[in-house]
Amino acid sequence: MPRTHAKLPRLFVTGDLGAGATLTFGKDQANYLGNVLRKRDGDELVLFNGCDGAWLARLDGVTRKSASVTLIEQIAAQPPRTDLWYGFAPLKSARLDYMVQKATEMGVSALQPVMTEHTQVSRFNLERARANVIEATEQCEVLQVPEVLPETSLAQLLDNWDAAHGDRRLVLADEAAPSASPVEDLAQLRGQRIGLLIGPEGGFSPRERTDLLAKPFAIPISLGPRILRADTAAVAALAVIQSIIGDWR
Amino acid sequence: MPRTHAKLPRLFVTGDLGAGATLTFGKDQANYLGNVLRKRDGDELVLFNGCDGAWLARLDGVTRKSASVTLIEQIAAQPPRTDLWYGFAPLKSARLDYMVQKATEMGVSALQPVMTEHTQVSRFNLERARANVIEATEQCEVLQVPEVLPETSLAQLLDNWDAAHGDRRLVLADEAAPSASPVEDLAQLRGQRIGLLIGPEGGFSPRERTDLLAKPFAIPISLGPRILRADTAAVAALAVIQSIIGDWR
Repeated sequence: MPRTHAKLPRLFVTGDLGAGATLTFGKDQANYLGNVLRKRDGDELVLFNGCDGAWLARLDGVTRKSASVTLIEQIAAQPPRTDLWYGFAPLKSARLDYMVQKATEMGVSALQPVMTEHTQVSRFNLERARANVIEATEQCEVLQVPEVLPETSLAQLLDNWDAAHGDRRLVLADEAAPSASPVEDLAQLRGQRIGLLIGPEGGFSPRERTDLLAKPFAIPISLGPRILRADTAAVAALAVIQSIIGDWR
Repeated sequence: MPRTHAKLPRLFVTGDLGAGATLTFGKDQANYLGNVLRKRDGDELVLFNGCDGAWLARLDGVTRKSASVTLIEQIAAQPPRTDLWYGFAPLKSARLDYMVQKATEMGVSALQPVMTEHTQVSRFNLERARANVIEATEQCEVLQVPEVLPETSLAQLLDNWDAAHGDRRLVLADEAAPSASPVEDLAQLRGQRIGLLIGPEGGFSPRERTDLLAKPFAIPISLGPRILRADTAAVAALAVIQSIIGDWR
């Protein structure tokens, strides 16, 4: 699987990227480049900012306190923006980090933490999740950096759905989905704007499930005959969505 | 998502299960039941052995050194045996545990560690993987306990494929797959015996990839426009396989 520049370190930056531009990094990024990656003047790296594609850049001033790079050329165009909203009940720390990284790899455009009755954490660490998103984009060559939204409650989410999301349909995994085939259920949503909601370990409460299924925008799908943990269900549902109606076609 | 007996602890056991039978556990399991789960005489649990479905059982003799249970009734029949072979290059420890657990949840029937040029571990811990499989079956109510096979090399695997696997087709994720649609590629395999091979972080070496793609039984599929980490690719590929030609239908 040959990929140009695949071995160069990739760094997310804020600010515009264009030919000949020079960027200056502060202490943290200089430390990362110089001491962690052991990069020196003249070494190459790849920069992206979520809008301007991927750029080859060359380090030309690494000190302990700052580093500067000069942009050489664009090596990948910014891909067309995808629109796949992803809501999830936060899990405990390691599994949550994983869940956020995996959703980024799978190409979601927004991550929305949703507090539910069985959610096992009381507070969502937004900064940590944003750092996990950036790490996943850097490691997995993802150029569209998904937004991480502040936490909301399931009740608020459902009450505000129409105002915030218009005609977006909300896919949810449900063991009692009318059809056993997620492929058939999803194929009927082709061309529509999609969201996916993954509940906590232990699932939605009976009341939450009733509320969810009563919404006209809710689309329950089956994820097979076995129980899946929440983080597995997330990757599995995203894979089926991307392959049937998303950008894996 | 109401599930009968979903809150009872589940325990994998060896040996036959049948109405009225009594089982005696040794020190480790007695300790787990008595001290970790804090179960007492009269408490119920669910037992399974990978062949006889799930059985409701009642504890009737918990001491520090042993515990005995009496089987009450079968609460779930053994599901039809699935046949989905899963080969994977072992990852480093936490990600490997995760990969083994997830494959079990996703319903593979056998796990085959495959050493490749870029594989980052030199030895596969078979006992640890088996323990992870058991843990996943207990947590996720999986009744078919997949087999974990001793490690092999990619070269051996390919040389022995026909003798060991007959007409089984081997699906592999490949960025340069002829079609961008895994759905179409997999739909053509309906009714055939399937294996999935997931390479290491960094992928197969160019030589390995050439060898793989030259095999008539190899079926390269695309997993979308983004790079996926190996553990993500595993869950994603299994989800698409199960939904298109597996038991999610």
